[in-house]
Amino acid sequence: MNAPIRITSTLNVRAQFPAIENWHYLDSAATAQKPQAVIDAITNAYARDYATVHRGVYQRSSEMTGRYEAAREAAAALIGGKPAQTVFTRGATEAINLVAYTLPREGRRRVLVSTLEHHSNIVPWQLAGFQVDAVPLTDDGQIDLDAAEDMLTNEHLIVAFAHVSNALGSILDAKRAAEIAHAKGAYLLLDGCQAVARLPVDVAALGCDFYAYSGHKLYGPTGIGVLWGCPDLMKTMPPWQGGGAMIDRVTFESTTYADPPQRFEAGTPHIVGAVGLHAAIDWITNIGLDAVHAHEAALVAECRAALAGIDGVTLYGPEASAGIVSFNVDGVHAHDVATILDDAGVAVRAGHHCAQPLMDSLGIAATARASFAAHSDSSDIAALVRGIEQVKRIFT
Amino acid sequence: MNAPIRITSTLNVRAQFPAIENWHYLDSAATAQKPQAVIDAITNAYARDYATVHRGVYQRSSEMTGRYEAAREAAAALIGGKPAQTVFTRGATEAINLVAYTLPREGRRRVLVSTLEHHSNIVPWQLAGFQVDAVPLTDDGQIDLDAAEDMLTNEHLIVAFAHVSNALGSILDAKRAAEIAHAKGAYLLLDGCQAVARLPVDVAALGCDFYAYSGHKLYGPTGIGVLWGCPDLMKTMPPWQGGGAMIDRVTFESTTYADPPQRFEAGTPHIVGAVGLHAAIDWITNIGLDAVHAHEAALVAECRAALAGIDGVTLYGPEASAGIVSFNVDGVHAHDVATILDDAGVAVRAGHHCAQPLMDSLGIAATARASFAAHSDSSDIAALVRGIEQVKRIFT
Repeated sequence: MNAPIRITSTLNVRAQFPAIENWHYLDSAATAQKPQAVIDAITNAYARDYATVHRGVYQRSSEMTGRYEAAREAAAALIGGKPAQTVFTRGATEAINLVAYTLPREGRRRVLVSTLEHHSNIVPWQLAGFQVDAVPLTDDGQIDLDAAEDMLTNEHLIVAFAHVSNALGSILDAKRAAEIAHAKGAYLLLDGCQAVARLPVDVAALGCDFYAYSGHKLYGPTGIGVLWGCPDLMKTMPPWQGGGAMIDRVTFESTTYADPPQRFEAGTPHIVGAVGLHAAIDWITNIGLDAVHAHEAALVAECRAALAGIDGVTLYGPEASAGIVSFNVDGVHAHDVATILDDAGVAVRAGHHCAQPLMDSLGIAATARASFAAHSDSSDIAALVRGIEQVKRIFT
Repeated sequence: MNAPIRITSTLNVRAQFPAIENWHYLDSAATAQKPQAVIDAITNAYARDYATVHRGVYQRSSEMTGRYEAAREAAAALIGGKPAQTVFTRGATEAINLVAYTLPREGRRRVLVSTLEHHSNIVPWQLAGFQVDAVPLTDDGQIDLDAAEDMLTNEHLIVAFAHVSNALGSILDAKRAAEIAHAKGAYLLLDGCQAVARLPVDVAALGCDFYAYSGHKLYGPTGIGVLWGCPDLMKTMPPWQGGGAMIDRVTFESTTYADPPQRFEAGTPHIVGAVGLHAAIDWITNIGLDAVHAHEAALVAECRAALAGIDGVTLYGPEASAGIVSFNVDGVHAHDVATILDDAGVAVRAGHHCAQPLMDSLGIAATARASFAAHSDSSDIAALVRGIEQVKRIFT
């Protein structure tokens, strides 16, 4: 048995997470646990401050409107954007669907994605009628940007890549991806679900045209996500979902619409979702995303070294991944690995990670995946290693 | 000055609402305040039970999946439906958009709505390319079903009516509306946002084909709604938003989809929204919707009698409304009425209530609207009357 290399990186925030006491939660890439500050913000929003937004004349509604718009400012500022181009959606999935359904086609009906994309960055394009072309990966599981450059044509409207792979942790060279896209007159959309909780992001520096992320993976509430789009493009996009708050003037003969971002927010929004997301953004920003990234990079190095030292464990993805380590144990299905780890108090995800084409390209059905968060530490890795040793004892 | 008729109906639940202490909250039709049981369910879901659903192999995720599906059962049972035909959406607005965009057209491209519809039951049909025809109202603000019968043609795919008007409180004879629709081979969708918190609903007894409602108006969380559809129809509807959890098998060449309801739930759902909605449904069901309806009917009668006794107050809508009273004070804009009422600790909404065509048909720009909830009582009406007397003193 190999002892893990103890780097013992810690941000000392574990005690702020009430739901992971005595639990090695290594499934943050699926959904993040919530720090107490976020839970308190949600509770207070319902128990003390609750009112609707935008439409109430009374003081409490005006204050809640202020909170909702302050959340939009924070959601924009997190990625270096402006609130006027920042739309609250149901999640990153809805954000990508919104772009797929409303971006003017300009006669181009192809989209370039990569082999490692999450289904949420494949299926919306298919449903919206695009031909989907997929860039292959390098041997260590990164999007092959040389291949992307070769594959991109003037028929491609948009390039849509994960900023960080949910299955492998691969970090995209987003700036180069933007240059490749723009050289052919295509746009670049980044699926930032895994990135925003793990890296500092600046859409202006990256040069992307759209950026989508979800709240629940960023230590925030479920049911809310964010779409940022560059201003000139957002103005060209027609409304998609109709309802209250997104209109200018409604008659049965014809209706006129509000400008972005309101144009894309039909109906009463997820008010408390926005307030909770704001608290999450404040929380992670206060720690610092540089510090979080360094912390998770250290944990990944420690974890990969520990797992590489166990006979029969196969690791996937690049060495320098952002907080995510996918692996398999020879001769054992990933679900069995995860079940035995669960008995040992370690939560990992097992399956295709909503990335069936990636699994096909790797020639496997599934992986087990350990994913880290700000609260993770070496004790989680030690428990993972003990659990995998137990897997091996049971299956050999 | 006229004293209000004191019927003093009370359900004795006011103390369960922490956010309305010393406040006369009469804007429940915009959004309902939350009882402590709902707030606690949300807090516990984040602080104790939190995990993702459907995809986790570990025990906590399996338990949360059980809670999520139990919420679906409750959301279905509330309206007499089955969980397999019950979809969680972002809200009622998304529910109506989903039907507008996916219901097979069968060569019919017209929809029949009414003049009192909320924008969320007008604009989605326009955006989805339907010709929208609007049924006029009776003199007391009810949907004129005789006119509907005359107007409906074989070109209409669907009739879409509010079960209860958000602006006037008018209660639809939904059973007759279903008979009228079905006689011409059209479907009936009911916008149940205002109804589910105020009336017992049974979709089988009403004979409707779709029923949409939101969680936040039913004492539940923001960011979640429900679409129920009759089984044969839901199966004919193609997927709309793409992403994780709604697929069967994804390849870049072609993708196959899950059956309803999963087909329509792309991405990580609003897990805690579902759990909180379940708590809200349990809470209101425990009180009993018959009791809530009787309570609000008594408050409406008391309120209308009191306001009718004040010179210069115009009342809109039918006498027997479901918990909602719209009014104006002669010579005073509704926004000024609401602002002065706010100073008096009374929250009412003022404006077009997302029903501009209704305002046009009434020949007014706006109304003030008092809307009741289970926690409302005669003290709220007394404060409203005192506030309106103050409005009159200021403006005369």
